[in-house]
Amino acid sequence: MLDVLGYESVDALVDAAVPASVRGASTDAGAIPEAASEADMLAELRALAGRNRPAVAMIGLGYHDTVTPAVIARNVLENPSWYTAYTPYQAEISQGRLEALLNFQTMVQDLTGLQTANASMLDEATAVVEGMLLARRASRSRSDVFLVDADALPQTKALLAQRAEALGIVLHETAYDLSPPPDDIDVFGAFVQYPGASGRVWDPSAVIAAVRAQGGLVVVAADLLALTLLRSPGALGADVAVGTTQRFGVPMGFGGPHAGYLAVRAGLERQLPGRLVGVSRDADGASAYRLALQTREQHIRREKATSNICTAQVLLAVMAAMYAVHHGPDGLRAIAERVHAATGMLAQALRRRGVTVCTEHFFDTIQVRVTDAAAVVAAARERGILLRHVDDATVGVSFDEVSAADGSVLPALVEAIAGAGGEDAAPGGAPADGPTFPDSLRREDAYLVHPVFHAHRSETAMMRYLKELADRDYALDRGMIPLGSCTMKLNAAAELAAVSWPEFARVHPFAPASDVEGYLALIDQLEGWLAELTGYDAVSLQPNAGSQGELAGLLAIRGYHRSRGDEGRTVCLIPSSAHGTNAASAVLAGMRVVVIACDAAGDVDLADLRAKIDAHAGALAALMITYPSTHGVYEQDVREVTRAVHDAGGQVYIDGANLNALLGVARLGELGGDVSHLNLHKTFAIPHGGGGPGVGPVAAKAHLAPFLPSHPFAQRSAHAGGLVFAGGPVSAAPYGSASILPISWAYVRLMGARGLRQATGAAVLAANYLAARLRDHYPVLYCGPGGLVAHECILDLRPLREQTGVTVDDVAKRLIDYGFHAPTMSFPVAGTIMVEPTESEDLAELDRFVEAMVAIRAEALRVGAGEWPADDNPLVNAPHTAESVATDAWDHPYPRETAVFPVRSLVRRKYWPPVRRIDNVHGDRNLVCACPPPAAFA
Amino acid sequence: MLDVLGYESVDALVDAAVPASVRGASTDAGAIPEAASEADMLAELRALAGRNRPAVAMIGLGYHDTVTPAVIARNVLENPSWYTAYTPYQAEISQGRLEALLNFQTMVQDLTGLQTANASMLDEATAVVEGMLLARRASRSRSDVFLVDADALPQTKALLAQRAEALGIVLHETAYDLSPPPDDIDVFGAFVQYPGASGRVWDPSAVIAAVRAQGGLVVVAADLLALTLLRSPGALGADVAVGTTQRFGVPMGFGGPHAGYLAVRAGLERQLPGRLVGVSRDADGASAYRLALQTREQHIRREKATSNICTAQVLLAVMAAMYAVHHGPDGLRAIAERVHAATGMLAQALRRRGVTVCTEHFFDTIQVRVTDAAAVVAAARERGILLRHVDDATVGVSFDEVSAADGSVLPALVEAIAGAGGEDAAPGGAPADGPTFPDSLRREDAYLVHPVFHAHRSETAMMRYLKELADRDYALDRGMIPLGSCTMKLNAAAELAAVSWPEFARVHPFAPASDVEGYLALIDQLEGWLAELTGYDAVSLQPNAGSQGELAGLLAIRGYHRSRGDEGRTVCLIPSSAHGTNAASAVLAGMRVVVIACDAAGDVDLADLRAKIDAHAGALAALMITYPSTHGVYEQDVREVTRAVHDAGGQVYIDGANLNALLGVARLGELGGDVSHLNLHKTFAIPHGGGGPGVGPVAAKAHLAPFLPSHPFAQRSAHAGGLVFAGGPVSAAPYGSASILPISWAYVRLMGARGLRQATGAAVLAANYLAARLRDHYPVLYCGPGGLVAHECILDLRPLREQTGVTVDDVAKRLIDYGFHAPTMSFPVAGTIMVEPTESEDLAELDRFVEAMVAIRAEALRVGAGEWPADDNPLVNAPHTAESVATDAWDHPYPRETAVFPVRSLVRRKYWPPVRRIDNVHGDRNLVCACPPPAAFA
Repeated sequence: MLDVLGYESVDALVDAAVPASVRGASTDAGAIPEAASEADMLAELRALAGRNRPAVAMIGLGYHDTVTPAVIARNVLENPSWYTAYTPYQAEISQGRLEALLNFQTMVQDLTGLQTANASMLDEATAVVEGMLLARRASRSRSDVFLVDADALPQTKALLAQRAEALGIVLHETAYDLSPPPDDIDVFGAFVQYPGASGRVWDPSAVIAAVRAQGGLVVVAADLLALTLLRSPGALGADVAVGTTQRFGVPMGFGGPHAGYLAVRAGLERQLPGRLVGVSRDADGASAYRLALQTREQHIRREKATSNICTAQVLLAVMAAMYAVHHGPDGLRAIAERVHAATGMLAQALRRRGVTVCTEHFFDTIQVRVTDAAAVVAAARERGILLRHVDDATVGVSFDEVSAADGSVLPALVEAIAGAGGEDAAPGGAPADGPTFPDSLRREDAYLVHPVFHAHRSETAMMRYLKELADRDYALDRGMIPLGSCTMKLNAAAELAAVSWPEFARVHPFAPASDVEGYLALIDQLEGWLAELTGYDAVSLQPNAGSQGELAGLLAIRGYHRSRGDEGRTVCLIPSSAHGTNAASAVLAGMRVVVIACDAAGDVDLADLRAKIDAHAGALAALMITYPSTHGVYEQDVREVTRAVHDAGGQVYIDGANLNALLGVARLGELGGDVSHLNLHKTFAIPHGGGGPGVGPVAAKAHLAPFLPSHPFAQRSAHAGGLVFAGGPVSAAPYGSASILPISWAYVRLMGARGLRQATGAAVLAANYLAARLRDHYPVLYCGPGGLVAHECILDLRPLREQTGVTVDDVAKRLIDYGFHAPTMSFPVAGTIMVEPTESEDLAELDRFVEAMVAIRAEALRVGAGEWPADDNPLVNAPHTAESVATDAWDHPYPRETAVFPVRSLVRRKYWPPVRRIDNVHGDRNLVCACPPPAAFA
Repeated sequence: MLDVLGYESVDALVDAAVPASVRGASTDAGAIPEAASEADMLAELRALAGRNRPAVAMIGLGYHDTVTPAVIARNVLENPSWYTAYTPYQAEISQGRLEALLNFQTMVQDLTGLQTANASMLDEATAVVEGMLLARRASRSRSDVFLVDADALPQTKALLAQRAEALGIVLHETAYDLSPPPDDIDVFGAFVQYPGASGRVWDPSAVIAAVRAQGGLVVVAADLLALTLLRSPGALGADVAVGTTQRFGVPMGFGGPHAGYLAVRAGLERQLPGRLVGVSRDADGASAYRLALQTREQHIRREKATSNICTAQVLLAVMAAMYAVHHGPDGLRAIAERVHAATGMLAQALRRRGVTVCTEHFFDTIQVRVTDAAAVVAAARERGILLRHVDDATVGVSFDEVSAADGSVLPALVEAIAGAGGEDAAPGGAPADGPTFPDSLRREDAYLVHPVFHAHRSETAMMRYLKELADRDYALDRGMIPLGSCTMKLNAAAELAAVSWPEFARVHPFAPASDVEGYLALIDQLEGWLAELTGYDAVSLQPNAGSQGELAGLLAIRGYHRSRGDEGRTVCLIPSSAHGTNAASAVLAGMRVVVIACDAAGDVDLADLRAKIDAHAGALAALMITYPSTHGVYEQDVREVTRAVHDAGGQVYIDGANLNALLGVARLGELGGDVSHLNLHKTFAIPHGGGGPGVGPVAAKAHLAPFLPSHPFAQRSAHAGGLVFAGGPVSAAPYGSASILPISWAYVRLMGARGLRQATGAAVLAANYLAARLRDHYPVLYCGPGGLVAHECILDLRPLREQTGVTVDDVAKRLIDYGFHAPTMSFPVAGTIMVEPTESEDLAELDRFVEAMVAIRAEALRVGAGEWPADDNPLVNAPHTAESVATDAWDHPYPRETAVFPVRSLVRRKYWPPVRRIDNVHGDRNLVCACPPPAAFA
């Protein structure tokens, strides 16, 4: 590969590609430990795991222990066919996870009683915020006031406060059941927690009706397990339902990742944030799934975006959906009834011992009056049980699938709460006295009636269903996914091992610090390593997606300016080539976006930048850039750019999306960045999971640290380096998606500083090799001096289109026939593809890609030459299914072999797409977002 | 299903199918604990695991700690696509594991320097026995004497003694290096351990030449890792090499399972026992793999068999082969050099401290002179290290991949052996003094030169290779494998979890009892449960395959008769329908086989039985029967049969292969059985692993217990019930394949007595449902009263063949096109198929099978009617690959759709066979048993 490029060594190549002004002193070898073997790394990680103490977590507040069915753990969570897949933008090769997500949507729709659910949210608290934003834009009211349930989860309240402030929304907290919504306040919406954080179950339908009567929308956060027994939000009149699906088989994992959900009534489906799976048809008229209404996505809408949500929680949504498929409606109801009965037995046992149970009506949670809450919490903890310390005189107890089935829990609880001994401390007593919730709230309607929730009743059938779906998808375990800017690199099995360990999985996010020492130590180390690698002072791991990291960084800039009295600094400069979420996040941080032009070389146009800085002078809040740029080039002038912004009093945000091209070579902080987010699911080996989970830490200089995310339940306030974060939270849990942090920890531990630098070199080598091999066939749009690119390259397909009529879409779909996932299409430049091979692809796979791209161009030229008609050729008909060629009725002007085996190596290694090209317009015009009846596939 | 059969309940069906005389009192509920939930079962198993103490095991003796590459653990060991596959008899749908096994053979051939290796043996000690048997039949000498290396592994010596005795072979132990083989003794062969059990490395070529000069064959047991540095057995002149591949990434697992190996020089390949993978071609002339020389298999040769080996260790052989693929020759050599260097450093450090190192030349093991071996072993153990206690004045130390990389081991060893403190106790000293083995033994020739050992150098490439191979195979994760007598039932993920836990995986089989309390408790419980379920008094879990269980049972019968002075009792009666291993095992137990006829109903012909008993009167040793019979029917007269044998002084062996039809309904011991083997990989949920591992416990009445297998290193002599076993060993390890016993333990724990009975009922229901649905299309050959079968049924395809010319083979291969693995073919009756759906298949899958079988018959009738030519129709051309239909050159008289999508549901769920029908004769005539050059696939 070096020979092709004409360099002696990888170091020489990197030196030539990266401007000298950018190259930093290499990372302090002392700060990052030397590379460990897999065995040694795992031993260290086991020692950290040993410092966590998984207890019987009855704290509740949206996190519950659960049993992940082993067939799902093994065949989804631990199966690269699921976890190494990308977001299903290439729908034709994503039918398996799209079906799983459609099951998820159907499950949420059924249980919430609403019309349309999206394909998951990041967590419950951010879903509530999205619900609030949706209410604001869909409401007839022009009010800025949003009612908030006093009995909402505390972390939800904290998140709402942080997010509302930036957007000028006024929150009004109220105890609905004590006083109806004030009709003297005009509101655009209201939020109801159902059941409440206290556990109470009450009928909010009158409140809902009142808010709706004045034109407001009502967002209900509902517990899905409770909804198997309780009337659904839809039936109660809600417009929007949100929540988490964690307790459907997804481990607590010290806070995440889990799939949140959001569902809306009919009429609001086009207001949905996030991703939505819909049903359409393929070129042969067969039913096929794909992401619906993609024009809503923020990479299209940019500064007009109404949400910056991009990453979903696909892997976790798949697990939750499969949990419902596995148990079916009867199984879920049985679990809910056991949980409910256990709670009832506790209430009864306590009342008989003279303890006051404050919660009259409940599902799984009660609050109990005690004389000394701290003493009771401590007594429970001695018995291995964690309770919620509500206030000095109140404790909360929440049952779940696991604690309800553990016969030792009830007597231990009674002992801890009511004092030792006594005849009622044993389980199995009489049923609780009186109804535990109002009869009017008892659910009567059916749910999960679709056959998929009834067809896989044995482990054998479930295993095969999961295999069948996985077989329809293309993931990294089949071949390269050369997606520019997405960094689809190896997710090593050893790095993933700890995610399955109970010491990391079965931990409540609000457990006491002394129970989670292993987690805190790991987080501390990882924060320190990331700070060292990026040249920043402080790192927060709380943001559970890149977009949330962006938002946290911009909110920190906002907080910084305001702390200095600079309320007027609200302009955010963003180059035209930027990723769509940049602009969306800026808007959600209360900023105005001003776009900077790029010059012919694709770099930031310095003149335009200076002009815009001048124009906005005192209003300048920040510049957001990506380095290396989204054009895949190491820009020469980055230090000049950042200096200009600083000189004008602005802060510099450097998007870390392309850190894979920089690690060990240069540090963002040294380039002039004040704050950045990283994507642990890109550079730091967390798998993409088919479209999530992601982790988007925010890293900043010390002056911004006070404005980084804190959390009401954080186990510690000081972070690595002793810095205290005091901004509002951006995720529901203090450390975001904590349970997957061991993956990135393991990655850094296995690589060491030297290994990380080598990986950067290998990534740059691979990208330049592809650019060199393909340059004669497709122009490389942007290069730095010496014709070198960074870790990715943009191939310009516009000349080919002009010459032959063959589009980017045709090339992308034809690549499927050749056994590849397409590169990034038309981003950041329409009519191009952006190719990022990463350091994980070996020469054989790179050459296979070159072979395919060269062959596809030759095919296109035959179309251009008129040899094949423009509307009937292997490109426009791509991808070809097995069914489409295994038929006697073949009337295309090219042979079947050309369709499906255009190169010989495919005979041994053929991926068969399950459907042909999908008609997106048809699907958006005829929106269907629930599982279609089986007959649709007949 | 009950409606189709006309029964009210499963109990009523079972009562009708099983003769009243057979049905036993139901199992004592107290003995088998009530069914546990998966979570509770796993908690109990974790508690047992916690009672094992994995230490740094430096005992050696053929078992070494090793690092299983995480990519192999996750994608092979924990992947149902690999572990739920069956033995690759249907080669067309087994190309993935056949390729992996060919890698295994090539690896063994290369490292041993011999021409042909088989596709694995059960373990090293049984492989030595097989080598001895091979030498005997291939030797020109008529001598009964076999020379045994005095420095052989102790367990190998014990096994040789047990097996030689039954066959009249005289063992002559000799210390070759001290005295050359005596030339006054005529021998048929000799056995050499290389390196020796003591660790010594010496040059055996003179000894080999001497033995060969007198017409004997030499069997060398060699350590594969050592062979990366030492001259190969082939280069030294050996005829046969045997050994284990355990240390190639397969955990010790308290003794197994691991893949043994056996390789032979050119000219002996047709003498190989076990399974051999070879290269042939398919109907399109493409290279294809299949089992070669299958006519050698014991199910064909029966009493003429020369080996009873049936099960191989496929899953473990795949792991070992992939370990070699992963590391390549350079990686393996580097590991060996590290191990060797660590041993040298220890020897040097000890010598400098004045300790006498007895082993002058060594690879990874040395013996050391000490004043008090017990004290040294105890001192090492205090430091977490296990040494070998050789004798009162000698300890042995063996290094491996793990201990060689652990810097704390060397100082701890020096301290324990030479006393605390001292300047040489740290690693990294000068190299060992003098050469550690003779230069003449240094390996010079290349090995693992095939591209497969060089092409997968990254985890990404390895993951894809494993996926690519798995994609070529059909396993239970795709659909039903209705193999009569093989019981391909669910292997639940929760049952398999513990196999991956280090507390079960990283345990040396000869660790002290106090280190393996968890294992011993689990074994004790499982023995007790199996005894209870079968109605026997004693159970040995040592046999690591069904065939070894048979052999152990027959050797127990032999021992029993001889203990009573009945040396003349050597006749073993076996019905004509018996499985081939029955007869083979009887021969190897020193018995003469006399075949009993079956009557028209398929039952044992009572008259013939009585006649044969009379004819052999005082010579009668045993009767071997299977119940329910291999005809899939509950015979009425089983008690009469067993009584007749007992009356004549014989013992009754009941083959437990069909226990899946009996558990909870009847007990073998109550039917008159004295001894049985069970197949934990059939009835008790251990996966088949693509053709192994298996576990074949032997269960017996108390009077046979003294003759059940013991072991020189057994951690305990008394078994469940306090019975002491004192027969010779049948496996290399005391508890055989101990690390997979948790699977069966978990199965029984999850089911409870009631669940096991329900499973039997469901299996009988499923078989009778299939029989009823298919009876009108294919005659059911044998039934009991009421037309009922047991848990499987034989469909007679002979009438269809007479009518249409379509063969069993055509139907089996056509089933592949329909997405099924064929049932058992032509066993026990030629021209039939035997279908066993098991309790794990749901109604939808059973109906899919019925649909396929009915459709195939209709196709056959079209051939019979002349609509399609006999030599060109969908049956005779089956299976159809994707390549064969995705071509414009299609000249068959039926459409492509009929070829590959004969039923509509296949469009969604199609398994594409990677090759077309394979030509077995071509492969056997042109025997190629190593990886073919890549060009063969071009």
